[in-house]
Amino acid sequence: MSSHNRDTKKVAMQQIVAFDAGGTSTRAVILDRTGACFGYGKAGGGNPVSSGIPAVRASLRTALQRAAQPLGPGAAGYSSAVIAMAGASVRTSAEMFRDGLKELGLQGALVMESDLLATFFSGTYHTRGYALVAGTGAIAARISAGRLDAVADGMGWLLGDSGSGFWIGHQVVRAVSAALDGRGPQTSLCAALLAVLGIDPGIPAFFQGRTAAAQQLVDAIYALVPVELSRFAPLAFDAVADCADAVAQDILARAAGALSATLGAVAAPAVKGPLIFGGSILGRHSTLGTSVEAAAGGNAIRVLDGVAGAAVLALRHAGSIVDAAMFVRIHETLAGLRNP
Amino acid sequence: MSSHNRDTKKVAMQQIVAFDAGGTSTRAVILDRTGACFGYGKAGGGNPVSSGIPAVRASLRTALQRAAQPLGPGAAGYSSAVIAMAGASVRTSAEMFRDGLKELGLQGALVMESDLLATFFSGTYHTRGYALVAGTGAIAARISAGRLDAVADGMGWLLGDSGSGFWIGHQVVRAVSAALDGRGPQTSLCAALLAVLGIDPGIPAFFQGRTAAAQQLVDAIYALVPVELSRFAPLAFDAVADCADAVAQDILARAAGALSATLGAVAAPAVKGPLIFGGSILGRHSTLGTSVEAAAGGNAIRVLDGVAGAAVLALRHAGSIVDAAMFVRIHETLAGLRNP
Repeated sequence: MSSHNRDTKKVAMQQIVAFDAGGTSTRAVILDRTGACFGYGKAGGGNPVSSGIPAVRASLRTALQRAAQPLGPGAAGYSSAVIAMAGASVRTSAEMFRDGLKELGLQGALVMESDLLATFFSGTYHTRGYALVAGTGAIAARISAGRLDAVADGMGWLLGDSGSGFWIGHQVVRAVSAALDGRGPQTSLCAALLAVLGIDPGIPAFFQGRTAAAQQLVDAIYALVPVELSRFAPLAFDAVADCADAVAQDILARAAGALSATLGAVAAPAVKGPLIFGGSILGRHSTLGTSVEAAAGGNAIRVLDGVAGAAVLALRHAGSIVDAAMFVRIHETLAGLRNP
Repeated sequence: MSSHNRDTKKVAMQQIVAFDAGGTSTRAVILDRTGACFGYGKAGGGNPVSSGIPAVRASLRTALQRAAQPLGPGAAGYSSAVIAMAGASVRTSAEMFRDGLKELGLQGALVMESDLLATFFSGTYHTRGYALVAGTGAIAARISAGRLDAVADGMGWLLGDSGSGFWIGHQVVRAVSAALDGRGPQTSLCAALLAVLGIDPGIPAFFQGRTAAAQQLVDAIYALVPVELSRFAPLAFDAVADCADAVAQDILARAAGALSATLGAVAAPAVKGPLIFGGSILGRHSTLGTSVEAAAGGNAIRVLDGVAGAAVLALRHAGSIVDAAMFVRIHETLAGLRNP
C-alpha cells in the first residue's frame, strides 16, 4: 500500500495538464511525458470575452477536477500546464488562473497558448503548415517553427469573421428579411427561419405597410445577442441539401470564397506543410469545406477541437520532442478517455 | 392691451403643432389653419428606440417651448398636434406624450404619424407617390390616398438598412480590416479610417501574428455601439471624390443597387406620383443619389427632414385641405423661421 502510494506520487510529479478553453466548453487532459493520457474532463465555456474571467477560472478548475477524478486523490500533482485559449496573451495572462490551479495541485510552470496553435497541433506534429478554423468566428494562421507566423481575419462578427457560422447565419436572416418585403428573391429559408422562431407566416395583418411576420422577425432577431445568429447557419446547409435553394447556395458559395481568401492571405511559398481544418462550418459533411479544400489545392486534416494540440504544446513546453509515435499515442489514449 | 390679449387668445386657439421627432433631433413648428408657421424650435433626439421614451418626452416639450418662445405667454394654447416619429403606432402611442404636452397648452387631439409619411409630405402635397429615406437607416414607402400603402426595408442595421449610412460605414470598416491582413484589396480607406480613429499605421509590433494597427482597430470598433459605424460612411464618399478609390466606388455602387432594390420593392404600376428622397446618403451632392434617381427613371425631390410634412399632416388632421398654395406657404414661412 505504501509502495503503491510512492509509485503514484512519482508518476504524479511527472504528470502535466493541457487545457483547451473554447466558447462553448473547456477541456482538460492529464498526461505523462510520453504522451499517454490518463484523465479527461469537460466543463463550461472558457472564452474570456464571451464568458468573463471568473467563469473561465471556474471552467478550468472544474474541467481539471473531472479529469483527475478517476486517478484518485494521490494523483493530484502536476509539474506544468498549458492553457490554449482564444486571444491568449492579448487579453489574458497566466497570472489570472495560476492560484486557482495551484490549489488543485499545479506545482510548476503555467503557460498560455493560442487556441489556433492548439487546433493546428491537434492535426499534426509537424511544426509548420496552415490552420483554418470556421466555427462561430473564422480565422486562418500560418505556423512556422511551431509558432504563429501570420494570422488573417479572426476580427470578430462586426469587422470580419467572413464565412463563419455568424456570417452565414447573418446572411440567412438578411436574405429572409429581403425576401419578406420583396427586395430580394424568394427562398425556402423564409419558411425555415420563421418556423425556427415560431412565427406564423400567414397572419394577414399589416402594421405601417409591413406584414405581421416581418415585424415579428424584427422583434425576434433584435432580442438576440448578434453572435447568436450563428445558430441559423445550419438552415443554409439544410436548404442546399434539401432543395438546392439558390439563395442558400449563393450564401455558402460566398462563405467558401471568403474562407479561401482568408486562407490565401496567410499563404507563403516558403512555408509548406499540412492544412488543418477546425470548427463546425468546415466539418466532414460540408461541401463548403471540400470547396475550400479544393481551392487550397490539397487535402485538409479535420480536427474536432484543440485538446490534442494543447497536449502537444504542453509536452513541448515540458521538454518532450513530439514525434509521430508520440502524436499517435496522444490521440489513441485520448480517444479511449473521450469514448470509453 | 386687453383687446390685444383677446386677439392673441383667439389666434392661439386655432394654432396647431407639428413635431418631427428624429434620431438626432426633434423639431416643433406652430402654425395656423392656413399653413402659416409662427414658431419653430429644435431639441434633442426623439427616436423612442435609441433615446428611450423619457428622453423623447423631454425633447418634444423642449422643442415646443422653444417654438412658442417668440410668441409670448398668451400664445400657449393649441387645438391639436401631430407627432411624426420612427416606428409610430408600433412602438409608441399618443398616451405616452399627451400629459407632458397638455401642460404646455395642448387642448385637443394628439395624433402619432409615421416619420416616413412626414418625409414624403415635406416634398409634396400630392397624396400618392414614393419616398426613399437613407440616413443611418434605409427605408422606402409607397403612399396612396395619403397613407402608407407598402414599405420595404427599414429592418434595422442587423436585418436590413441595406445601402444606409450604417451599411456603408460597416462596409468601410470591413474593407479596411480585410485590407490590413491581406484578405482584401488595398484601399485609401485604411489610412483614412486609422487617422479618424487616431491609430498609427506604422507600429512594427505584432501580437499573435497580427499587426498592432489591426489589433487597435479591433479594440476601437468594438468599443462603439454598432449603429455608430454610420459615422464612417463619409470616408467612402471622400475616397471616391478624392482619388476614385476602387474599393470605395464598389461600396457606393452596391449601396446604390441596394437602395434601388428597396425602392423597386414598393413600386406599383397603379401608383404614379412624385419620388421624395430624404436622409444624408441621398443628399444633393452625392452621385449615389443621382444613380438611384436614374435607376428609378425620374427626378427626385430632396427634402431636409420631415418638419414641413408633419405640418401638412397636422393640417389635414385639423380638417384643412392642403393645396399647392398652402404647401408653398408652409415652406416659405418655415424657411423664414429656420433661417431668420
